[in-house]
Amino acid sequence: MDARTYRARRQELRRNVPHGAILFLGLDEAPRNYAANVYPFRQDSHFLYYAGISQPDVALLLTPDGAEIFFGPAADLDTIVWSGPLPSPAETAARAGVDHARDISQLPTAVADLRRSGAPILYLPPYRAAIAQKLAGLLGRPANEIAAGASLDLARAVARQRSVKSGEEVAEIEAALDVSAAMFRAARAAVRPGRVEAEIAGAMQAVALAQDCPQAFLPIVTVRGEVLHNNSYHRVMQAGDLLLIDYGAESRGGYSADITRVIPVAGRFDERQRAIYQVVLDAQLAVIAAASPRVTNRDLHFIAARKIAAGLKEIGLMRGDLEEAVQAGAHALFFPHGIGHMLGLDTHDIEDLGDIVGYPEGEARSTQFGLGFLRLARRLEPGFVVTDEPGVYFNPPLLDLWETEKRHAEFINYSAARQYLGFGGVRIEDDLLITADGCRVLGPGIPKAPAEIER
Amino acid sequence: MDARTYRARRQELRRNVPHGAILFLGLDEAPRNYAANVYPFRQDSHFLYYAGISQPDVALLLTPDGAEIFFGPAADLDTIVWSGPLPSPAETAARAGVDHARDISQLPTAVADLRRSGAPILYLPPYRAAIAQKLAGLLGRPANEIAAGASLDLARAVARQRSVKSGEEVAEIEAALDVSAAMFRAARAAVRPGRVEAEIAGAMQAVALAQDCPQAFLPIVTVRGEVLHNNSYHRVMQAGDLLLIDYGAESRGGYSADITRVIPVAGRFDERQRAIYQVVLDAQLAVIAAASPRVTNRDLHFIAARKIAAGLKEIGLMRGDLEEAVQAGAHALFFPHGIGHMLGLDTHDIEDLGDIVGYPEGEARSTQFGLGFLRLARRLEPGFVVTDEPGVYFNPPLLDLWETEKRHAEFINYSAARQYLGFGGVRIEDDLLITADGCRVLGPGIPKAPAEIER
Repeated sequence: MDARTYRARRQELRRNVPHGAILFLGLDEAPRNYAANVYPFRQDSHFLYYAGISQPDVALLLTPDGAEIFFGPAADLDTIVWSGPLPSPAETAARAGVDHARDISQLPTAVADLRRSGAPILYLPPYRAAIAQKLAGLLGRPANEIAAGASLDLARAVARQRSVKSGEEVAEIEAALDVSAAMFRAARAAVRPGRVEAEIAGAMQAVALAQDCPQAFLPIVTVRGEVLHNNSYHRVMQAGDLLLIDYGAESRGGYSADITRVIPVAGRFDERQRAIYQVVLDAQLAVIAAASPRVTNRDLHFIAARKIAAGLKEIGLMRGDLEEAVQAGAHALFFPHGIGHMLGLDTHDIEDLGDIVGYPEGEARSTQFGLGFLRLARRLEPGFVVTDEPGVYFNPPLLDLWETEKRHAEFINYSAARQYLGFGGVRIEDDLLITADGCRVLGPGIPKAPAEIER
Repeated sequence: MDARTYRARRQELRRNVPHGAILFLGLDEAPRNYAANVYPFRQDSHFLYYAGISQPDVALLLTPDGAEIFFGPAADLDTIVWSGPLPSPAETAARAGVDHARDISQLPTAVADLRRSGAPILYLPPYRAAIAQKLAGLLGRPANEIAAGASLDLARAVARQRSVKSGEEVAEIEAALDVSAAMFRAARAAVRPGRVEAEIAGAMQAVALAQDCPQAFLPIVTVRGEVLHNNSYHRVMQAGDLLLIDYGAESRGGYSADITRVIPVAGRFDERQRAIYQVVLDAQLAVIAAASPRVTNRDLHFIAARKIAAGLKEIGLMRGDLEEAVQAGAHALFFPHGIGHMLGLDTHDIEDLGDIVGYPEGEARSTQFGLGFLRLARRLEPGFVVTDEPGVYFNPPLLDLWETEKRHAEFINYSAARQYLGFGGVRIEDDLLITADGCRVLGPGIPKAPAEIER
């Protein structure tokens, strides 16, 4: 995106937050097992949104009088030898449409001057301790008071602005989805009985890396899909297993895809797998049919929950009055998570700012098991990008616990459910752009009908 | 490794540091772009060495009276649904030979009790801000005083102990080298003109991941090898380029390999490439021939520097009295880094503890350009594992700078050197185990003679 885009975004932010100085700190390199051994660098998403600068040790200061100042590092001899030449702070600033540039070493003085002037300095709550510590030093406050001192006004304005995606942003997400589609093809080609999950994870990662794209999050590549965020890859795949892959490439611009597919290791679904798969697919398609600015994401969650409950009743796993069952949360034994979340520069977009992103002011998350994991409950708006990811799982310890407690026994056929232990889980996920009157499934179309997935 | 190994290591540490309590904190998940989106978890290497427990949110406390207490998380319902069941703290502790186990929530009370008893609480300097912040909370000190309060006695004892590798540790490094050898084969098979560096990086990563091994550090896969830590992968490889790969798999136990090879993109070295390659190879082999407990690693650095200077004189790039040239640091225009470093659980092993690892007490690093980057200068001992990684590079901005300053002009033929701009760099790296009377090159043997590398 070009300098005008970033400048316009900052101007809009300024209109919405007219008071005080606004300070954005870029992220630093994140140490793995010692300071010099770092994880792949990823810039803070707010910094990418307002300046597009993907480089450690930078800051952006919007002063109360409307000036914009970029702070960045200059390359010394050691940097040139070890990391290569760097553009000057002024060159970098110009690419983001920022008029003023200074060396990062001058940031403390600039902040100290502002503090002396009495201007409030607004910042977002940091999610890395290193940034909290840096803010503590700059602002002269203890590190453990930094989170509480973050600006809610600023957070609300940023969340509102980033929630609605421009055409350029949607194109970035679709670029990530193109790579993700190729990753699916690589996965499906590599799946067979006797192979280790890690081989599939490796084949998928190779496709992303070859495009010089990172993965947006640690991929899930597992035959134990009932553990929702299972990040181990050591299991040998058996012919009766379902391999669940939940993954997404990240575009060059930092935008995330988020896709889940289930591949039968044997190449074809067996009858039981096909039936559960169809229940999930029906729920996923019902959400696509219903998604629009006329509904909330909580509505979509319940549309999926009802479809799942109805499907499971047909199979004999649930019973009784389904509306009562869903209101009571009985379906959460099988579908224990939310229907989806916002997607953008972050996979859980803007999640660092908390529930102001997903919940209207004054509305708290449910404490009910399952529904409490719904990250986005608010009314959808044109330009929102959200995930649609229902699932059905058979989690042995969860089933044991509920059965022991006889929880929702009027709605759940526990003896039937026990027959499914070892089944794993099915989740199907696409990324939806909310339009004026409905939604559009983003990306090139990644196989999801059973016949398309089977070899 | 089994519980006895860890227990014996802790007992040896206790003998060397008999006073005070010793507190090891494991690492936490490291957030990427928001708290829940984390980098692949890697445990702190000291924690792996003394307990072998690779799990976030754990601590190990060795009390002054000789008790050992492990603190770890218990799995609640949400954990079971999202991350799967966890062993109890007691089960985990037993695998490390630790007698006592408590829930991690009890750590603050345990530390507070110790503080009240007046016992000093020894800890290592943290390299992650999150750990500094956690220590600050536990010890009731400001976060910015935590580094200064770390125990030098403890650091020295740990560094001494970890520097000498056991047979089990060497086997882990060789396991990492086996995977790394397969990664080399994948790289060589994938290199060809017109491909992007990222495709090679992806092919290598797929091999490591398929073995369920992470890479120990961000790999260097570049035709611009003159930038020593070049971590970009976007360049299209041309027939005249040399692809430099510096990478290493990490074993299941957390041990690192560290290998550098250079592959001619055309499939064969041209005459100029072959000559420079031979200079580096001669230096690398001279270090293998000389490495033993009779020498310091600084000696090895100078053996390599002299070989490189002699080779470059023959080619016409250096001139004059070579011993003077090397003492003055003139060779550092072409060989600007150190000959190598310790290798173990960390790629730069134990580097988090600073120069107490690589330099004898009272001996400071040189301030000379090049020699100042030598991480290990001390006398070698049987059981040390070190890297042997000389190189020759043609770095345009560095050459410009030195030539403008006429630096070491009596030793450097600048006009000849200018002919090599665009050449890139050559580095050849193996991992050496120091034995009683020499050294052994670890691993299965990864091609390094020109004829073995060429297709």
